[in-house]
Order: sequence, then structure tokens, then C-alpha cells
Amino acid sequence: MDRLTIIKVGGKVVEDPASLNKMLDQFVRISGNKILVHGGGNTATEIACKLGVETQMIDGRRITSHQMLEIVTMVYGGLVNKKVVAQLQARGCNAFGLTGADLNLLTARKRPVQEVDYGFVGDVYNVNSREMRILLDENVVPVVAPLTHDGNGQLLNTNADTIAAELAADLSRHFNVYLFYCFEKKGVLLNPEDENSVIPELNLLDFQNYQNEDVIKAGMIPKLENGFKAKKHGVKEVLITNPENMLNGKGTRII
Amino acid sequence: MDRLTIIKVGGKVVEDPASLNKMLDQFVRISGNKILVHGGGNTATEIACKLGVETQMIDGRRITSHQMLEIVTMVYGGLVNKKVVAQLQARGCNAFGLTGADLNLLTARKRPVQEVDYGFVGDVYNVNSREMRILLDENVVPVVAPLTHDGNGQLLNTNADTIAAELAADLSRHFNVYLFYCFEKKGVLLNPEDENSVIPELNLLDFQNYQNEDVIKAGMIPKLENGFKAKKHGVKEVLITNPENMLNGKGTRII
Repeated sequence: MDRLTIIKVGGKVVEDPASLNKMLDQFVRISGNKILVHGGGNTATEIACKLGVETQMIDGRRITSHQMLEIVTMVYGGLVNKKVVAQLQARGCNAFGLTGADLNLLTARKRPVQEVDYGFVGDVYNVNSREMRILLDENVVPVVAPLTHDGNGQLLNTNADTIAAELAADLSRHFNVYLFYCFEKKGVLLNPEDENSVIPELNLLDFQNYQNEDVIKAGMIPKLENGFKAKKHGVKEVLITNPENMLNGKGTRII
Repeated sequence: MDRLTIIKVGGKVVEDPASLNKMLDQFVRISGNKILVHGGGNTATEIACKLGVETQMIDGRRITSHQMLEIVTMVYGGLVNKKVVAQLQARGCNAFGLTGADLNLLTARKRPVQEVDYGFVGDVYNVNSREMRILLDENVVPVVAPLTHDGNGQLLNTNADTIAAELAADLSRHFNVYLFYCFEKKGVLLNPEDENSVIPELNLLDFQNYQNEDVIKAGMIPKLENGFKAKKHGVKEVLITNPENMLNGKGTRII
């Protein structure tokens, strides 16, 4: 099977032009098939604020009202996605941007209301990568925005880490998939104050212990849960790293 | 050669949910390969206004400042495009949305400043439909937003009528192309007050005469110029019509 690298980059990396440029310079050097999955939350919050729409987050997850859905559709699917695509084209990389609605890539269910009503947030239940694989065969590089659809015309907001993991798991049936979560830190840190305290390898038991000891917390928990899930579904390697170390394999490896 | 239908729908058709629904119900009934090209100008103007960005139009063309470019990128490439894609998916039509940057579809030059500085507006000089044709072969339906790129990372705002004509001309080398410009009128009207005064056929000489007599004016002129250009480049049929008459071939036919 061919190698496929899936890079998920967080909002902080894609939203700052200088760090976006640096990341894309690294990204285009990855050989073989590759997919970029991006966030864009800070820009969405900023545009929402300018439009007078209040941003509400619970445990790092965005409450997505009808108005907020329109904003994330504009920002993730339009502004951020098309900027990244144009920048990749400028580097000779034949990118195309898409959401989970395009090519029916990711179908999701609106999250049921339990303690929290997340609004128009979707949990993925189906991946259709058929047409995307045809494009990968043509050396096209998909750039995926964190939006899905319910198949009945409703767009939904879905976490980019989850989308990267779902794509990685599905595509593992066709490729040797390497999934890299790139964010602003060098990896999962033992001590958040010490950039050099990267945990080099992490298994599920350690992950649980670190959670109990409060070493791993907040937004890192769902990211790692997605990573472990992807690994369980046949993804060759899951690495938590930053754009600088994306190519040399340094960071936290999920085992 | 196979038949390919390219439908360009104006902002007024896609921006009103009821007329969008009606149009899409008709669109999915078109047999064979098809492409939808859409506008979205009114929504862009509305969002710009909410963001405190002034909209300036000259002869129906939008002056595109840096801020306005961000807005049209969000609105055309994100909000309008993804809504249409999700609605087509709900109708069992495997749509995917793209701009001219995606798949390097449309390369343009920033319009040189003459009497007017249009800002980030692009004039198309290259069409690369290779990957789009591969997707058409897979029964995928492209939905094109009116944005292009310059190949150096800069997105540009490009008129949707022009994009439809450029795609139609390029794809005429591979398909029998039928290009329909759908807007809110039944066709080109002899008397703007009389909905039933549709000119059934229009040749270049009549077009020039009608312009001299001020019967055809304003935004209809560039639309028809695009239509005549497409016809000259081998497009089988160019029809100016409304969504209701899209399938029965009524409207103004360019000959």
C-alpha cells in the first residue's frame, strides 16, 4: 500500500500568515499522497464578534447556533480554506479545498441534546472517500475544512481533530496512513511550562494515568482520544508535533 | 461527444431559499454531465455592511479592496457555495464546490488599473479542467464560486458570467456544451416592463443595434458579450432564461 500523510493543523498555525507560510513550506516537502485538515476557530470568533454574534465555548467546544454555523461555514469553508488552497497552488501543489459535504465525504448526525445543547454540531457516522482517492491518484492534495453535512441539506460544525482521525481510519483500508497533529507545542508536555518536557511515547494506560494526575487535560484529551481511536483503526503512526518537527518525526508518538 | 450543461445562476436565484430550492429541483433533473456556477453579490454586500465595509460598484462591477476580497471569499467560496453543495447532496446529486484556485481551475491576472481601479479583480487567462473532467466522469457535479487565483497565492474576484463562459469555451473541446444563463427574467426583454416581450433569438448584429437603441443595457451587456464569446468558441447553445424555463429551452437563444 502507498503511504498517505494526513496533517491536521490547528487554528493558531493557519491563522497567522508567517506560521502558515512556514508550515506550508514544510508540508509541500512531504513526499507521496497527503491531505491537510485545518481549523480556524480564532478567525471565526473574531468575525463573529465583528458581526455582533457572541461566541460560547464549553470544554473547548463551540456552541453552534444558526448564526454561528453561517459564520463557521464562511470562515472555515471559505476564508481559511481558500487562502490555504491558493498558497499551496503557488507552491506548485495542486490543492483543492473541501468540506464534508463536498463529494459526500463526511456524513454526520446533529449531536443529541444532553446536558449541553451544542447546536449545529455533527458527529461523523460515514466517510465516503471514493472520489477523494481518485483525486489522490492524480496527485491532487485535499485541504479539508472542519464542516460536515447530515445528508438532508444541513451543514454541521465538526471538530477538525475528529475529522482528521475519521479520514485516517477510513483511508487506512487503502493506504499506510501517517497522521500528524500539528499545533504550537513540540508534543504532549509533562510540564506545560517546559517546552522540552515532551513525552516521546504514549500508550493508553499512560494516557489514563496522566489524566488522573491532571498532567494531560483540557483540549489535549479529545485530541489524544482521536489519536488513539485512529491508531486502533489501523493508522500506522499518530504523532503530536509542531510544524517545525513535522518532517523529522519528533514529538509525542501514540503507541 | 457527451453533452455537458453549464448553468449559471445569479445571486437573486441562489440567495433566496425558496427560489434556490425551486432552481435546484429543476437542476437535478438535467440529464448527463452538469456544472453549476453561482453568484452571491447581495449576500456579500449585506455581510460587508454588517462588518462596516462599504460596497462600491461601478457599472455593476464590485470594487474589491483587500477587505472586500476577504468578504467575497467567505461568502462566495464558503457560505453560498457550501449551502448549494449540501442542498444538492440532499437531492442525491454528488456535488463538490470549488473556486478557480481549487484544482488550479482558473488562473487570472489582476485587472490593470486604467480609469478605474477595480482592486482584487481577476481576468481569466487559463482554464485547467483536467481534474474536473475526471470528476465529471465519476458523475460528480461541480459547483463553481466566482473566485479565481493568480498562481502566486493571490485570490481574485471574477464575474460569475465570465467564469461560466470561460468554462464553457474550454470544455467545448471535450463535450457538446449547453450554456444557460439563469436569472429572474424569462430572457432578454424588448420592453423591461413586459415580461412577455422576450427576444427569442439574438445575433451579433441585432445585439449591437439593440445596444445603440438602448433596448439592451447595463448588466445585460457583459452577460451577452460573454454569451457571444462562448458561442464563438464552440459552445453548442447559449440561452438566457429563468429557472422555470431552464429545462424546456425557452428564453433568448444566442445565434
